[in-house]
Order: sequence, then C-alpha cells, then structure tokens
Amino acid sequence: MNKIRLPVIEIFGPTIQGEGMVIGQKTMFVRTAGCDYSCSWCDSKFTWDGSARDEIKLLEPSEIWTELKKIGGCTFTHVTISGGNPALYPQLDGLIDLLHEQDIQVAIETQGSLFQEWFRKVDDLTLSPKPPSSGMEPNLDILDQIITAQHKHGRIDQTSLKIVIFDNEDLDFARAIHQRYPDIPFYLQTGNPDVKDENADDLTPHLIKRYEWLIDQVMNDIDLKNVRVLPQLHTLVWGNKRGV
Amino acid sequence: MNKIRLPVIEIFGPTIQGEGMVIGQKTMFVRTAGCDYSCSWCDSKFTWDGSARDEIKLLEPSEIWTELKKIGGCTFTHVTISGGNPALYPQLDGLIDLLHEQDIQVAIETQGSLFQEWFRKVDDLTLSPKPPSSGMEPNLDILDQIITAQHKHGRIDQTSLKIVIFDNEDLDFARAIHQRYPDIPFYLQTGNPDVKDENADDLTPHLIKRYEWLIDQVMNDIDLKNVRVLPQLHTLVWGNKRGV
Repeated sequence: MNKIRLPVIEIFGPTIQGEGMVIGQKTMFVRTAGCDYSCSWCDSKFTWDGSARDEIKLLEPSEIWTELKKIGGCTFTHVTISGGNPALYPQLDGLIDLLHEQDIQVAIETQGSLFQEWFRKVDDLTLSPKPPSSGMEPNLDILDQIITAQHKHGRIDQTSLKIVIFDNEDLDFARAIHQRYPDIPFYLQTGNPDVKDENADDLTPHLIKRYEWLIDQVMNDIDLKNVRVLPQLHTLVWGNKRGV
Repeated sequence: MNKIRLPVIEIFGPTIQGEGMVIGQKTMFVRTAGCDYSCSWCDSKFTWDGSARDEIKLLEPSEIWTELKKIGGCTFTHVTISGGNPALYPQLDGLIDLLHEQDIQVAIETQGSLFQEWFRKVDDLTLSPKPPSSGMEPNLDILDQIITAQHKHGRIDQTSLKIVIFDNEDLDFARAIHQRYPDIPFYLQTGNPDVKDENADDLTPHLIKRYEWLIDQVMNDIDLKNVRVLPQLHTLVWGNKRGV
C-alpha cells in the first residue's frame, strides 16, 4: 500500500485552514487530482476539468512527505488532504500512516460520496455533502455507511459535517442532514459565488454580506440549534488566489 | 449557591461566537459586570469603567434563565458567559448547574487570573492570558493551578488558550505560553486597535490586513507549529456594535 502512487495536483503551505472544524489551523495542503462530482460552484475545478492536467504528478507517500518537508521545513505538525475528492483513493491509507509515524495530524476534506476504511484513522474528517445549488445529488446511503462506521470506531469527535449554503433551498437540505445525523458536529458555510476574482478587496465585502445573511437565517431557526456558522477565511484574505 | 445573585450587565443573542475555540457557534451571551484587569485595548470597558453601571442587574440563576428563554426562545442549546471576568464569581456554579439541567452547553471566557472550582464543569473554557500590549501582567502561578486542575479532571479537550496579538512583543509572550502548556489547544487572535468604530465597512479592511500580518508571522515560525490563527468574526461583520 505504501508504494502505490497518488495523483497529486498541488502541495503547498504552511498556511491556515480557512474553513470548517479546524478553521484557522496552521497546516500544509496536499491536493489530489480527480473528482466523482462536478459542482457548479466548485472553487477547485482545475482538479477535475482537465485545465491543469499537466500539473498532476503521480507520487508515492514517501515522495509526498519529502516535498512537504522541502517546502514546509520544521514549521508544521498538521497536513490537510483535499481535492477533488481524496476519498477516490484507497492508497491514501499509506500516506496517512506515514504522516502519523512522523507525528503529523491528518485532516481530510471529502463530500462523503465514497467510503474508505482509512476514514477511521483521520484526525479531522470533514464530510461536506453537496446541497441542491451544486447541481449534485448526494447518496445518503453512503453517508449513512460512513457515519455508522465512525460511530462504531468511536470517531465522532474527529468527524464533522459541513454544508455550503447559497440559498434557502440549500438551507432546507442542511436542516434535513442535521436532523439525520444530530450528534455529528455541524457546520454551515457561506458559498462563494465568484470563484474567479483574485482580488480580495473586491470580493471581501460581498462575502461578508453573504455571511451576515447566513447568520440571520440561522439565528432564529429552531431546527438549527447546535450549529456553527462560518465564512471561508482564506477567501476573505486572499480572494480566489491559488496556493495560499 | 443557587440563590446568590450575579451582577449581569447584558444578556443577548442568539448570535455567533465570533472568536476562539468554538468560533461560529450559535450561542446566547451572558455578560457579567466587573473585572480584576483593565486592559488598555479592552473591547468591553463598559463592564468595569463605571460608564454602564446603571445597566447592572443583580440576578439569581433562575432569573438569568428566564431572561435567556424570553429573548432566545427555543433557538439555542449553547450559552457563553463572558465579562469583564466571570471568574470573579464563585456563585456562577449555580448558573452552570441550572443550564446543564436544561441541556445547555456552557462556554466561559476568562483571562485565567483567578481559579474557580466550577471550571471543571465548563464545556468550552477559554483562558486568555493578556500579552504585554494590554498593560497587564498575568499571574502564571494561577494559570498553572487552573491548567493542572483541568488536567487532573480530564478536561483538556474542553480547555483552550487564546492570546490576542498586537505586535512582536505579544508574539514572544504567546511563544512562552505555548511552550509552557504545549498540550493545551492554542489560539492566536488579531487585536482590534479601534474598539470604538461602529462602522464595520471602515474597520473590516484594516482588521483583514492585521489578520494577514498575523498569519505571515506565524506561518514560518517553528515555535508556533500546532496553533490556530483566527480573526474576530463579529467585528468583521458588525464592527464594534454592542449586543450582536
């Protein structure tokens, strides 16, 4: 397992995790190529639309670790594996083991459309089933399977659900997911309608207004009680710039 | 204990917790009056400078609960008790018990200058020793006592340290605190230099720049590895407006 190569499209950091259960965490990022979804508002379309296919490298876990140390040095103890959808790859198991051997905590970002045995090893597992505005239809049987397994292995504190919200239909979807899995830490996140603008000064005021709208919707909602409402910090600071 | 009154200066919500270990959490706020500190950049000076003394009410825990239900209805399961310094009051024990009986989670914000037996009952205990820019000198013997007790009672996962950073001297202080308590979840937060401006549109760009500066300082720092770097979300959205 340790020798099977992973398609990696970028490795960068250290920077902050801008969203979700470990928002603000100093972390390195490993971004895998490929996705089983094609969300209309995806902010990382280059991972699956072919536009950055020349950037994909097939790397063994030890080569990923070498690259992480080369660019991150001794500054980090946390690595986030995002995509695309990293849950496409059973061979991520070997990378997680290698990182843990180096005393590195591992976070994973996935939409929860595919189950992997290695989910139970992840320190911060974010499952982000996609709401109607994405154009996707989540398979809740798979999500059930993942969450049942996390329960069984005592990994609920290492798990969270994160729903991106653009509109009221997305909020209806979020309520249904929260009611289905009431004991999983639950995060609502503002959607970013403009995933191309690299100028944060233009984008930030719009994103803050969207965040305020989302807060307003949730605060008086009796179905969304024990929830956390967050923006994407990296877009507030850097717009849609890649590699930060 | 349940009948001893607490000096309360405001009760409001539901809103988001804008900072620290449960950033984004939907919560109600209870703000106690009085502080043993007088930080130069305190954003709640009205709790201790006498300017809002007419707003202080002496309330029993049951009266606080009645007020929380009156304004928050059935929208919340989380209450944050802030100040001033709520750790001035041993009688907070009774309020925490009452809230827990109602299945409400309880967060406390304190500088860690005073020990209370009830710290071990708190669901989210934020200790924010004040850096040099505050003009205060933290008593680390007391902080040692608090953290030793949290360890002893298995409450480390419910505890965090949060340091507000204005300058490089504050960062030196943060490094020393992180090295002293390396296993306590550690948060760095941008300072807000203008605690009077109620116009978020003016304030937000400055705060984002400060946040970016803080990220830059921390990312290449090998002494600050496993840390989380966060802004104050409420000031990004609402400036210094009270009661949100």
